[in-house]
Amino acid sequence: MPSPVTPPRGMRDILPADKARREVLLATIRDTYRRHGFDEIETPVMEDSSRLHAGLGGDNEKLAFAVMKRGLTPDDLRSATAPLDLADLGLRFDLTVPLARFYASNRAELPNVFRAIQIAPVWRAERPQKGRYRQFVQCDIDIIGEPGVIAEIELIAATVDALDALGVPGCTIRINDRRLLTSMLAALRFPANQADAVLITLDKLDKIGVDGVLAELRDRGLPEAAVAALAEVPALRAAAAGESAVSAVTADAIRASLPAGIDETAVADLAAIADAVGADVPLAFDPFLVRGMGYYTGPIFEVANPELGYSLGGGGRYDGMIGRFAGTDVAACGFSLGFERLVDLVTSSQDARGGSALVVDKDVAASDTIALKRMLVASGERVRIVARTNNMRALLERLEVDGYTRFASVRAGERDVAALQWRALGE
Amino acid sequence: MPSPVTPPRGMRDILPADKARREVLLATIRDTYRRHGFDEIETPVMEDSSRLHAGLGGDNEKLAFAVMKRGLTPDDLRSATAPLDLADLGLRFDLTVPLARFYASNRAELPNVFRAIQIAPVWRAERPQKGRYRQFVQCDIDIIGEPGVIAEIELIAATVDALDALGVPGCTIRINDRRLLTSMLAALRFPANQADAVLITLDKLDKIGVDGVLAELRDRGLPEAAVAALAEVPALRAAAAGESAVSAVTADAIRASLPAGIDETAVADLAAIADAVGADVPLAFDPFLVRGMGYYTGPIFEVANPELGYSLGGGGRYDGMIGRFAGTDVAACGFSLGFERLVDLVTSSQDARGGSALVVDKDVAASDTIALKRMLVASGERVRIVARTNNMRALLERLEVDGYTRFASVRAGERDVAALQWRALGE
Repeated sequence: MPSPVTPPRGMRDILPADKARREVLLATIRDTYRRHGFDEIETPVMEDSSRLHAGLGGDNEKLAFAVMKRGLTPDDLRSATAPLDLADLGLRFDLTVPLARFYASNRAELPNVFRAIQIAPVWRAERPQKGRYRQFVQCDIDIIGEPGVIAEIELIAATVDALDALGVPGCTIRINDRRLLTSMLAALRFPANQADAVLITLDKLDKIGVDGVLAELRDRGLPEAAVAALAEVPALRAAAAGESAVSAVTADAIRASLPAGIDETAVADLAAIADAVGADVPLAFDPFLVRGMGYYTGPIFEVANPELGYSLGGGGRYDGMIGRFAGTDVAACGFSLGFERLVDLVTSSQDARGGSALVVDKDVAASDTIALKRMLVASGERVRIVARTNNMRALLERLEVDGYTRFASVRAGERDVAALQWRALGE
Repeated sequence: MPSPVTPPRGMRDILPADKARREVLLATIRDTYRRHGFDEIETPVMEDSSRLHAGLGGDNEKLAFAVMKRGLTPDDLRSATAPLDLADLGLRFDLTVPLARFYASNRAELPNVFRAIQIAPVWRAERPQKGRYRQFVQCDIDIIGEPGVIAEIELIAATVDALDALGVPGCTIRINDRRLLTSMLAALRFPANQADAVLITLDKLDKIGVDGVLAELRDRGLPEAAVAALAEVPALRAAAAGESAVSAVTADAIRASLPAGIDETAVADLAAIADAVGADVPLAFDPFLVRGMGYYTGPIFEVANPELGYSLGGGGRYDGMIGRFAGTDVAACGFSLGFERLVDLVTSSQDARGGSALVVDKDVAASDTIALKRMLVASGERVRIVARTNNMRALLERLEVDGYTRFASVRAGERDVAALQWRALGE
């Protein structure tokens, strides 16, 4: 062969042991969310290009894979002025835009408060790098039609239960509120039309530190008085001093972290969420949690793990977005877990193992082999037929690697499953 | 909104009740195949465009959705002479081409005889019509590396078991062999270089009848002597007389259906398959079963159902194909079930129902509601929170439609799950 045969760049094959493990973990997540009253749906992997590029996907829109129109002529190619002129569809880059479209398409058939599960792949044409794939699975839950904090509470409770069920240790749910960020920037006298730019810089706090944030804001020409006022925010002063900016989620702790003039409704909402989810849920107030997407309007959250340099998932309230497709405003709130990162983290031996191998002599009739196999299968066994080879050691090692736990030799004329002599593998 | 918001043309959303039912059926298929010793794998939904268009997909290649290269410039658009110049990837149109690529990429890590399960969507830009979708799920099992008929036997046994487990009644597995077709056409003196064209016509027998087939062959300019000889083939004479061309799968019955000079190895193989799968598997020899794909080299099969005008699945041996990617010839054989057709056919009430609804008064604290919910969820219940409305009847009907089987009212201050008064829904 002229070149090695590989999956497309940035994508990968999933081999049997990994696939079995993934399916077990996905079933755990699906079952937990289902018990929490969420219902699974599925949308096509493609959406109309105009919907994907409606400005709701932020930077991810640029990473969308575009699907060409069918039946294009050479004239069509010549008259195109931009690549998207030739595309009518695209692969989804997240599960939120498709959900908004789904809700708009099907709301007449859905309950007033709709709790959705989506467990599905998304695609982004990111520069390939270690641990980042161009096709990856997201596990999203969303509540549409509930304006009250009970939505956030249900989402956090379900997510924490799912992480527990998976056996992911040591996670914290960091929480903040877009209204706190916006009101804080207004109180510090940042110009309203530059608030989004300030948030983009603030979002880099973990990476570039307090000095880096302040320098970048000055470089960007933001008012010196506002930048100086930001430097005096108690939580940022703590971060500058090497202390944690994160605190307990109580009204007092939130107010103590931030300047005067912050949104008191947001303070009350966060305190109510913390009160309701209870002390057994590891919740922490992070005044500089931003979450990238522009569509968030209220509480936002993220799953932090002290041992990891990245979050395992996140979400928040996005009340304005569904209305972009549905025509009328509908409250909405969601929480997404990144499945690929969870898979790497869960070390449990929950792979689906076990099974019986029939090691068959060359002169055994196929009808006898299949008769034995079918009897074992009918009794609930997982059965693999293997032809006997001279290298029995390699054969048995392979069976063990593939999760089989016992084997029996099958000689010519043997049709009695009870007469098989089983031997354990790995002894 | 200016226009109705719908999924892309020819694709569809799957709502909660359907999604739950599909997942139950998919789990049944997956579990059956797993017990039969097959291992599930997953490949990316996209493959390199050059691999999709390597001539292995037959007419389906023309139906592939093409994915545009990223970062195309206006110059790239202008200098393109054909649409595929602008595409580097495409969505898979079947699971066989990706499997061949997967095997070539990963064979060092796979057992010598590799039994694969693929349960996954494929995409074809077919003209939308009733019951045909542009995204649909296929359930494939394949055995790679086994040249003997034990492969066909295992595939048929597993498929029949899956159909039984799903509760699809009355299916027959029709079987034929490409070698029988090829040797029959040679014996009838059809020119070897026109054998494929003759098979395409013969494949229409069910639709256009014996006269239609013979007329089309004459129209295509095939030798009159060969066409006349075909008309005398016993099975075709039977079909012309309104009898069934289908017979039992024994060496004698196969020979009695066909002219002298057919491939005796194929006769022996089909008889051996029938002998091994046994009388409880409804197997029938169909001398005019062709199966569209050009890559089949040996036995071919199809799931027929007397009540349907279409097959539920099919497959066969394709020994030459894996070598196209792997570089060396590897024996291969597969059986594919069309999941969308099965879903429509299975009438079982296997949807995942059950659950408890908490109907919550307006003045109940969110912390109390979530505490009750979490206690129920922890005990294994599926729980939905619903705000009490004036229209209790509509509320309860909705819960029933969504599969909930009981509800309890929650009043302010209630935190004791044991004190809830449950009432059955649908009474």
